Order: sequence, then C-alpha cells, then structure tokens
Amino acid sequence: MSVAFTTTRRVEFADTDMAGLVHFTTYYRMMESVEHEFLRSLGTSVLNRDDDGRTVSWPRLAAECEFHAPAFFEDELEILVRVASLGRSSLVLKYEFRRGDDRIASGRMKTVCCEIQEGESLLAIEIPVELKSQLATLIEVE
Amino acid sequence: MSVAFTTTRRVEFADTDMAGLVHFTTYYRMMESVEHEFLRSLGTSVLNRDDDGRTVSWPRLAAECEFHAPAFFEDELEILVRVASLGRSSLVLKYEFRRGDDRIASGRMKTVCCEIQEGESLLAIEIPVELKSQLATLIEVE
Amino acid sequence: MSVAFTTTRRVEFADTDMAGLVHFTTYYRMMESVEHEFLRSLGTSVLNRDDDGRTVSWPRLAAECEFHAPAFFEDELEILVRVASLGRSSLVLKYEFRRGDDRIASGRMKTVCCEIQEGESLLAIEIPVELKSQLATLIEVE
Amino acid sequence: MSVAFTTTRRVEFADTDMAGLVHFTTYYRMMESVEHEFLRSLGTSVLNRDDDGRTVSWPRLAAECEFHAPAFFEDELEILVRVASLGRSSLVLKYEFRRGDDRIASGRMKTVCCEIQEGESLLAIEIPVELKSQLATLIEVE
Repeated sequence: MSVAFTTTRRVEFADTDMAGLVHFTTYYRMMESVEHEFLRSLGTSVLNRDDDGRTVSWPRLAAECEFHAPAFFEDELEILVRVASLGRSSLVLKYEFRRGDDRIASGRMKTVCCEIQEGESLLAIEIPVELKSQLATLIEVE
Repeated sequence: MSVAFTTTRRVEFADTDMAGLVHFTTYYRMMESVEHEFLRSLGTSVLNRDDDGRTVSWPRLAAECEFHAPAFFEDELEILVRVASLGRSSLVLKYEFRRGDDRIASGRMKTVCCEIQEGESLLAIEIPVELKSQLATLIEVE
Repeated sequence: MSVAFTTTRRVEFADTDMAGLVHFTTYYRMMESVEHEFLRSLGTSVLNRDDDGRTVSWPRLAAECEFHAPAFFEDELEILVRVASLGRSSLVLKYEFRRGDDRIASGRMKTVCCEIQEGESLLAIEIPVELKSQLATLIEVE
Repeated sequence: MSVAFTTTRRVEFADTDMAGLVHFTTYYRMMESVEHEFLRSLGTSVLNRDDDGRTVSWPRLAAECEFHAPAFFEDELEILVRVASLGRSSLVLKYEFRRGDDRIASGRMKTVCCEIQEGESLLAIEIPVELKSQLATLIEVE
C-alpha cells in the first residue's frame, strides 16, 4: 500500500562476500542509489544548484536495515520505496527488497535538505515547495 | 562506561564523496571491520571452522547508524565498542565514532552465530561457550 | 570496429570522491560488471557448476585502465566491449567508456577460465567449447 | 632495491567475494591508500590548498595491476612502494604486494599533479619543488 516508486537492481559479483552472500553494506548503497533514481523520477537530483546559487543536497541523518533472507550473485532484486514522513527539512523513506515473493531486506533512511556552505558546513533548509508537494501526495497511508 | 574495545580508523580518499564528506556507507564498513578486530582481540575470527568441521560465521540481522557530524578525508576516527546484549545465538554491539571530543556517528549491529550449511543456508547455533563467557564479562552496564 | 557488446552504466553518488569526480576504482568495478553482463548475453555466467560438478570461474590475471577525461555524478556512460585475444584458457577483453562523443576511459582485463578446487586453489582449464566458439566469432579484427 | 616506502594492510571481510578470495578492485583501493600514506610520510597530502590558494591534487592517468596469487580474509599484506619515474607534472609509483615470501600482486599508477579549477576542470602543474626533490632522492635505481 502506498508504494511511491518501484525499481530493480541486480546483485553484482563485487557485492558478494566469502560467505557466498550479498555483503550487507550493499543494501545501504542500493537504498541511496534508488533514492536518487526516485528523485530523478520527480524531475530533480540529490545535488542541485538552486536559483539563488546555493548548493542544495540531502545528507543522511540515519539509516537502518534489517536482513530477512540472503540474496545471491545475479539475483534481480525488486525495491519498493515508500514515503514514511515529511517534515520542514527532513524526509524519511522506507525501502523493501524482494526477490519474487521472498522478502529479502527492509530499511529506512532519514535525510535532511541542506545548503552545503563554504568549508562543507551544512545548514538545514526548507524542502523546495514543488518537490514537497510532490512528496506529500506520495506519503504512505497505513 | 563499559567500553569493551577501542580502536581507530583513518578516513581514506575512496571513502569520500562529491559533497566533500565521508560517504555514509563507510560507517557500516568500519563497524564490521572493527567487530572483526574485536573478535580477533578475543582470540577468534568472524569465520571459523569448528572442531566438528562446521563453518561458523556471524551474519548480520540488522544494522543502523546515526550521523551526528560530518567526517573528512584523513580524519583519524576513534571507535568505541560496547556489548549491548548477548542471547543464545545473537549479539548486539554498539559503536561510537569520535574525532577528538566530537561525536561523529553512533551505530549498532545485531549478528547471529550461524552454521553455514551446504548451499549457503544458515542455521542459528549457540555461541561457543568460551567466547560467550568472554563477551558476558564485557557486557555494558548502564 | 568489431565491438562485441555495448551497454550503459550510470555513475552513482557512492562512485564519486571529494574531488567531485568519479573515483578511479569505479571503472574496474564497472568493467567486471559489464564482463558479467556480456557473459549472460552469451547464455552463461562468470561462475558456473559444470556437468562434471566442477565450480568454474574466471579469476583476473591482470587489469589496467587509462583515464582520459573525468566523469561526473549521474553521467550515463556507454561501454563498448571488444574481444582482444582468446587462448586455451585465457581471455582478454577491452573496454571503452564514452559519454556522448567524449572518450572517458579505456581498459583491458585478462581473465583465465579456472576450476575452483577445495581450499580455493585455482586450476586453469580449457574454455568450454561452446563459449569459445561464440567468443571466436566476436574477436576483434583490426 | 630502492624501495621508497613499506607498509601493511589487512584484508577485510568486505574485500572478499563469493569465490572466497580478495576481490581484485581491492588492490587498486589499497594502492591509492598506500600512495596517500606515502605522501603523508613526506609531510604532504594528496589534496592540498597551496600558498596561492589553489587546490592541488593528483588525479590518476592510468593504473594497472597483475595478480600472481590469491589473498584471503585477514591476511596481512606487506606493500612495497617504488618511485618508477618522475616528470615535470607526472609521477609513476610501483607497488608490490607480499604475504610473507609469496608475491601476491604487483601494480603501478601514473598520477599527475593538477590544480583543480572551478567546475572541476583539471590543469596539470609542476610538482612542488620540495616534494619533487624528496621524490627524486627516492627514485628507483635498477
């Protein structure tokens, strides 16, 4: 219910480890990659220069993932994205990894819309109006 | 209080991203690397062949991290490990990343002691007695 | 001339570094991923169990890459594969990375068809007949 | 003969792949990390702001590696660095990976001293005088 975006990722050989499974860091890398694909589908990018010349990006505040079943080399994983919450600056997305009917992993990431200032300091700013209204229509209803 | 293990990791160039900061997946990679160093300090390894010829390892059930402040290239991070909980098969370790007095990130990982069987299927088994008693003496007291 | 296979890869945020460019290790990771996609297009995989129950894979003997121009986040790179040489056990593939008309990088990898034996020892074996004849028809003509 | 710098790196679990070996991209990552440690040992960094306010770094022009024998999880590899050649802007370093008496891999990387200008364009510049004279005394004599 209320899936905002769906895509797929194939497990690469470099994603595996000597236990023969997908290495757990792969899921975090895939969540980020899918987030960026989701933002592109909304007509924007995770890193932008806005009309005022500011560099705007979305640093992560927190990321978590639970691993339900192992995935293997060359598996094609389906990844479902849900908008869990939307604040003035913050966004929580949830991710579900599936292989056919198997639930492989489920995660969530909290990001904050920031201006990246001189010297890489970060200033939380309001989510741009147009993007916010797009995300609001996609928010998860339980 | 009740720090079980302390070590350091230096931020490599490959750990950075175009925002000029440490990429967030680096913390998960470092948590795992520090877990393995901690196990070595206890005289064991994350992947063992036990006396019964079984391959024993510690797949991850869940991993999470909160990012408090950015870290940068060539920073030397201090990482503190605490034993948060210890079950029949499961182990929860907490990680705190510091740069001097700055708290950079804090995470936790839940792992399960498993026999890796033919075909990469995983069977949860009891934590080996000697290791369990070592971990029990290190458990966090709040 | 004599391009055996063509595909694309998008540059991910995790592939960038603090210089704002694609980190150079990304090209090696992409070459391997494209090699595996090429093998799938020929109806096989980089890791197989053959009819005699042997595990057959293709460890790398050497890999090199030259970097002509930087690539950036969200670039979609076109990657052209050529079969440079084909021996009894060995295969050399060449890779060309392009962004539109720009040459970004060019690399080559030498792999060897091996049986992976107990204890991860590697034994070079003849390339399977059917695959070898497929590769032979694709070999680069200068 | 003429080893300029020696250090060690331990193979991490995340460096392995499902073949049970160190994944080949690990060697490139290690070469870069060792290069940066070598530069620190000479009192500088791979990324600097010079006295004229320019950002100076060392993009890679080419990198290659040959893999002689597999390395495994928790191996401690010894890495020897040699200065192969030194130009006006360019530097070629050679790397040898050993485990005890076993030669594991040998590689080389060509880097160019560059000013990173606005918009991430790269301008080759002369290697800073002091660093150049340090490197010259370390150059490999065959």
